[in-house]
Amino acid sequence: MGHADRRSRLESARARHLEELFELLRMPSVSAHSSSKETMYTCAHWLRQKLEDAGLQAVVDDTDRWPVVYGERLVDPLLPTVLIYGHYDVQPPDPLNLWTTPPFEPTVRDGNIYARGATDDKGQMYSYVKALEVLQHEPDVLNRLNIKMIIEGEEEVGSPSLRPYLDKYKERLACDVILISDSSMYASGKPSVMIGLRGLSYLEVKVEGPSHDLHSGLYGGAAPNPIHALSQMIASLHDADGRVTVPGFYDDVLALSDDEREVQRAYSQSSEAFCEEIGANQEIGERGYSILERTTSRPCLDINGIWGGYIEEGSKTVLPSKAEAKLSCRLVPHQDPHKIAKLVGEHLVRIAPPAYRASYFVHDGGAPYLADPSSKAVEAVCAALHTVWNAEALKLRGGGSIPIVSDFKQVLGADSVLMGLGLNDDRLHSPDEKFGLENYYQGIRACAEALTQLGREDFRAR
Amino acid sequence: MGHADRRSRLESARARHLEELFELLRMPSVSAHSSSKETMYTCAHWLRQKLEDAGLQAVVDDTDRWPVVYGERLVDPLLPTVLIYGHYDVQPPDPLNLWTTPPFEPTVRDGNIYARGATDDKGQMYSYVKALEVLQHEPDVLNRLNIKMIIEGEEEVGSPSLRPYLDKYKERLACDVILISDSSMYASGKPSVMIGLRGLSYLEVKVEGPSHDLHSGLYGGAAPNPIHALSQMIASLHDADGRVTVPGFYDDVLALSDDEREVQRAYSQSSEAFCEEIGANQEIGERGYSILERTTSRPCLDINGIWGGYIEEGSKTVLPSKAEAKLSCRLVPHQDPHKIAKLVGEHLVRIAPPAYRASYFVHDGGAPYLADPSSKAVEAVCAALHTVWNAEALKLRGGGSIPIVSDFKQVLGADSVLMGLGLNDDRLHSPDEKFGLENYYQGIRACAEALTQLGREDFRAR
Repeated sequence: MGHADRRSRLESARARHLEELFELLRMPSVSAHSSSKETMYTCAHWLRQKLEDAGLQAVVDDTDRWPVVYGERLVDPLLPTVLIYGHYDVQPPDPLNLWTTPPFEPTVRDGNIYARGATDDKGQMYSYVKALEVLQHEPDVLNRLNIKMIIEGEEEVGSPSLRPYLDKYKERLACDVILISDSSMYASGKPSVMIGLRGLSYLEVKVEGPSHDLHSGLYGGAAPNPIHALSQMIASLHDADGRVTVPGFYDDVLALSDDEREVQRAYSQSSEAFCEEIGANQEIGERGYSILERTTSRPCLDINGIWGGYIEEGSKTVLPSKAEAKLSCRLVPHQDPHKIAKLVGEHLVRIAPPAYRASYFVHDGGAPYLADPSSKAVEAVCAALHTVWNAEALKLRGGGSIPIVSDFKQVLGADSVLMGLGLNDDRLHSPDEKFGLENYYQGIRACAEALTQLGREDFRAR
Repeated sequence: MGHADRRSRLESARARHLEELFELLRMPSVSAHSSSKETMYTCAHWLRQKLEDAGLQAVVDDTDRWPVVYGERLVDPLLPTVLIYGHYDVQPPDPLNLWTTPPFEPTVRDGNIYARGATDDKGQMYSYVKALEVLQHEPDVLNRLNIKMIIEGEEEVGSPSLRPYLDKYKERLACDVILISDSSMYASGKPSVMIGLRGLSYLEVKVEGPSHDLHSGLYGGAAPNPIHALSQMIASLHDADGRVTVPGFYDDVLALSDDEREVQRAYSQSSEAFCEEIGANQEIGERGYSILERTTSRPCLDINGIWGGYIEEGSKTVLPSKAEAKLSCRLVPHQDPHKIAKLVGEHLVRIAPPAYRASYFVHDGGAPYLADPSSKAVEAVCAALHTVWNAEALKLRGGGSIPIVSDFKQVLGADSVLMGLGLNDDRLHSPDEKFGLENYYQGIRACAEALTQLGREDFRAR
């Protein structure tokens, strides 16, 4: 059976494929909220059924937090094995008032599906499920591979249960390569494979002054104000060249080769295009690097949240007893997330002015990743993308973090191939998150084609 | 009838006086919340009845927001007139989890009444109501004065309706002096009259960068982060000497005389005592001034609230599109609140780094106040305090703001005498706000005695 049959099958199933994705997107599977329990289980069992419908044997496994869905279609232990990874959990949808349509009521506008999780990662992950479904009609393709699929529910909270899960099910999950679609293409019509990812360190810092909130009239002028101290501390974290001032922060950074710098400059967006994309006056960042380098191949530090004092409607003349911030660093090879978290946290404690006490704690992070760009699996996936989009697939680094990629490497010994199906302006983690209808339909084709190409050559590491 | 009768009457009524105050404190009359409507009216009508019970003719007047309670006992238009002012509204009680007992369930512990509004201003205001009640038994005292009392419900939100109310009822409210108890004594057992108050400018500032929230992995390193910009802006508002850096901020400040500086140094708390009171490591503020000067006679600028990005449980890797802060300045004669608000707001807009857009808006503020410390009314109140506490009453400035004091001066042409009945550690505006039982009972005596002393001499301005 040729690809023409596959395409016509996919085209005639489009309405159903969209309705199923909508059903998935309607489930508010926010992993950060403990109130999501019922939804997480509903979602996991729904996915298990869809894997079964696509011809896999599937189970839902409990973890310490949210369940994992696992399915497999095993042909022959002597054949190469692909493990597909995705996640069904989503980021919190707030601020709700900035959504054009409610985050858990998926809507199509201008050729895009709007919903929390549309691109990250439900739309991309479900493309594999539908690709597996259609490949049931092509046993010659399917029977060249063992296929496994794991869908977790904790990616947006740092995947705390996944590492223990990998350790526990190491044998079951054994594979030769991992396919992941949880990222973006280089641009619309320009497919790409990500050969690198940034790592993540995430901290919370608290600055305390007076032991209780004070009246700003009675004490203002002499009482320490932790918001002032925290602001000073944050302001000092970057120098005039946009570099992070934490001593030792850049010590382990792998410098880019001249060749890679050249590619990254060639494919970097212009300042104008970048600013238009994000709706800003001007970009910021480390002097001497292109925007693509700054966002994918250089480490950075950002405050992700800040709060202190009175933040409700109206005015309150309070001097707060504390102020807090969440901050994260994006890391590049060979920075270590634990080392950087400690470095930044202790730096903050050290630079708190003498009238204040600063403390910090560390959330889950993840290591940076850099793959072999000329492996057979990468080449196979690039060929698949070329076929579907009729354009050569670029090999670039990504700026985000998929911490589990390094866990897979460590526990399963397998490399991951990151085949992004989304677009950079998909607003993942933001209001009005979207996923292009064409990205979804072409994505299903690309997933099917990638499995087809992988079946054509033995991509096992030797 | 002598004071011995008055004291025994007051002592036998203590349990009832406390129960009535508890009833008042149980009403969550938070003026900042629009949901308080029913409570505000219930509270106003309850107070109207208590004024009637104390022998005044009383009404509840609607305003554009919260009602005003007004009562009067007019003897003779040729006699001097005292206007008593208080407010029945309270600050929001948050953060609720820091209260030992719930804010609207008044409780006595260790000789103190704990509740939101205990000291600010229900306990102090209600002392006058109970003083008027007991003075009904002493017509010789009461008949030497005309007495008026106004109790508003918007003090904690800047009294927006009071100025129009004063303009409308200028004739009705005509008076020779205004008595206000909405502040603190110098210390326990050391009564004082406040001859000065600081004014207030209150602003909100918003800093915007990207037009929408962004994923910190995809954009971190090149996208502007408004939390960074706001932090830099805040950090730049004070110099190393603790002075406000906004150009022109100190231009209109009335310097203290050498004599007053000497008094303020003599009565200033030590650094140790101040830090112990507020539970901090160290005080901050303007170099070269004592703590009492810094908190009462020098202007200052404080951030009262800050927020931006993800501030809920857990981690979210977001680059926020905006960050916001509430900030206020405490002002001294002859700073103008409108001028300072504009000065600060426009300074903030000007210093926003080029990748950001800053904007601001101004909340209601109030002018600073300085009275004639040797007027007959001030002397009469000091004599009353001396009698009740058996200690000389100090004349000091206060650090807080009672914006209506300058409105009274402007519209009614009368000075205010500020007879604080609370203590500095009453935690007004904070969790565990309190008012001493003795402050309440002695306060009722002081109010009665002040009216007695005022009746003894013609304190009218000539």
